[in-house]
Amino acid sequence: MHSFDYLQEKLNRIFASVKIISEPKELYDPIAYTLSLSGKRIRPLLVLTGCDLYKGDLEKAINVAIGIELFHNFTLMHDDIMDHAPIRRGKDTVYKKWNANVAILSGDTMFALATEYISNIQTTVLAEVLQVFTMTARQVCEGQQYDMNFESRENVFLPDYIRMIRLKTAVLIACSLKLGAVVAGANAEEKKRIYAFGENLGLAFQLQDDLLDTFGVENKLGKEIGGDIIAKKKTFLYVKALELANDMQREKLLQYLADLSMTPDEKIRRVKDLYRILHIEEITKAEISGYFDKALQCLDQLDVEQNDKTELRGFANRLLIREY
Amino acid sequence: MHSFDYLQEKLNRIFASVKIISEPKELYDPIAYTLSLSGKRIRPLLVLTGCDLYKGDLEKAINVAIGIELFHNFTLMHDDIMDHAPIRRGKDTVYKKWNANVAILSGDTMFALATEYISNIQTTVLAEVLQVFTMTARQVCEGQQYDMNFESRENVFLPDYIRMIRLKTAVLIACSLKLGAVVAGANAEEKKRIYAFGENLGLAFQLQDDLLDTFGVENKLGKEIGGDIIAKKKTFLYVKALELANDMQREKLLQYLADLSMTPDEKIRRVKDLYRILHIEEITKAEISGYFDKALQCLDQLDVEQNDKTELRGFANRLLIREY
Repeated sequence: MHSFDYLQEKLNRIFASVKIISEPKELYDPIAYTLSLSGKRIRPLLVLTGCDLYKGDLEKAINVAIGIELFHNFTLMHDDIMDHAPIRRGKDTVYKKWNANVAILSGDTMFALATEYISNIQTTVLAEVLQVFTMTARQVCEGQQYDMNFESRENVFLPDYIRMIRLKTAVLIACSLKLGAVVAGANAEEKKRIYAFGENLGLAFQLQDDLLDTFGVENKLGKEIGGDIIAKKKTFLYVKALELANDMQREKLLQYLADLSMTPDEKIRRVKDLYRILHIEEITKAEISGYFDKALQCLDQLDVEQNDKTELRGFANRLLIREY
Repeated sequence: MHSFDYLQEKLNRIFASVKIISEPKELYDPIAYTLSLSGKRIRPLLVLTGCDLYKGDLEKAINVAIGIELFHNFTLMHDDIMDHAPIRRGKDTVYKKWNANVAILSGDTMFALATEYISNIQTTVLAEVLQVFTMTARQVCEGQQYDMNFESRENVFLPDYIRMIRLKTAVLIACSLKLGAVVAGANAEEKKRIYAFGENLGLAFQLQDDLLDTFGVENKLGKEIGGDIIAKKKTFLYVKALELANDMQREKLLQYLADLSMTPDEKIRRVKDLYRILHIEEITKAEISGYFDKALQCLDQLDVEQNDKTELRGFANRLLIREY
């Protein structure tokens, strides 16, 4: 396969040339704005990767790659309304810059546009591509729903949490790789394996996100530490801590999180101290490693060239091992 | 073709047996609720009609019919958030019964589900079905955007208005008929004609909706007369009135609509009086007849059995000629 640098470079050129329809501009401006802020474009990169691994024609995977990025950005646009999030990737969200109605309707349009791109593919694989994509789209909605349910739930158990991040984050990573493989005409066994690789990588990726939010290094992360604690988010760290805490520790944790008089810094410090006593950082790292190892096992089983496995392993490592 | 009664009966059985997934229930309950309130199911009926006209296998069109109804209800669910509408078809909207977040996410899921159903079709027509559907989905969003733009615009001209209702209402009617024809394997010419028939019928249908809201008979319509006037909606009647009014009449119309001290009944009476002076009712009826005649011309050109044309003409008439 090509190097990831080559694929990334190719993607940059593709997205630079994507033309979003212009009228009515109230509808399409927010879409162009969102795409211009696009993050690392990991998902379309994985579409190209899945295709390249099985020696498919990259040109044929481009529309799927664009569609997946549009879909991902649509979900973020709607999540930002539901979460009342003013900032994403350091810029105003569409919800904030325009308003909720704009974010709803531009998001809907983005979803339609995503399906339009994804459907623009050779007919031999169209049915399978759509089946994988539409199921994934629905699962991502389910994941967001479970995440919202957690807000009003007292007790969230680990299996609930893992199911939520599997649906909300991991399946789209897995779907991206698999769609690339489908376009390339990979066999059923291989599609299953590459999907499982992506799913486990996605779980590790999300758990790492949870970890970095609390135990990351501020200036390396580009965002403030402790946001999840302040927002009382039911992350892996929180769920695990409640599981391990004795009655007094549990009471303390809940009390810190609920305390409105405590300064944010103080709150973050106290919760982190409690997490340290419970070895939450180490446990989370072990959990990440567990999913990462599973991903690598899936990778080892792939029927692709050895060099490509090495390249893919390197990429997975770079994705995961961000500095703490 | 089968009679419309037969098709309607078939649809009722189909929708009675549609099982919406149940977990997470916060996501799927609102979808089941919406479907249970489903109105006349005109769009899925048109899918079956389009298929039946060209002697297609109705069983093959069922998934498309369900998908189109899901899509239509998704657009209503999101429109109700944007319009802050508490009531639809005499029942609480999802937005009102639950909340905006639920309506956003359940709506998104409904859109995904719609695409899933529509994609579940023989592969020979899949590419075309999706191309027609995704383009239509995007156009419906564009129509809703133009409609929202009108709220803050001083001047709306007739061509703008017709474009808006074409996108917001007519293209989905046209798409429904065409998709049925695509599933049945109709030729390109026929697909164009049945689409044009649906588009003109849809325009007539929406103009009639505008007319009935102001000049309908309350107890026959099942809703209050004058809602559009109170909501200051820029309907065909309003746009046409502003076009025909002299300076004094225009000033009066704007003044009545803006007057917060006037009772609703008084406001409706005065605006209707002004409309009568400008012959708006007659002009709107003529416009409806114009589009209806165009639709019938398209119908006459169809290469289908004479009996079927008669059946279809009868259906179009029943759709249009509701009592004033």
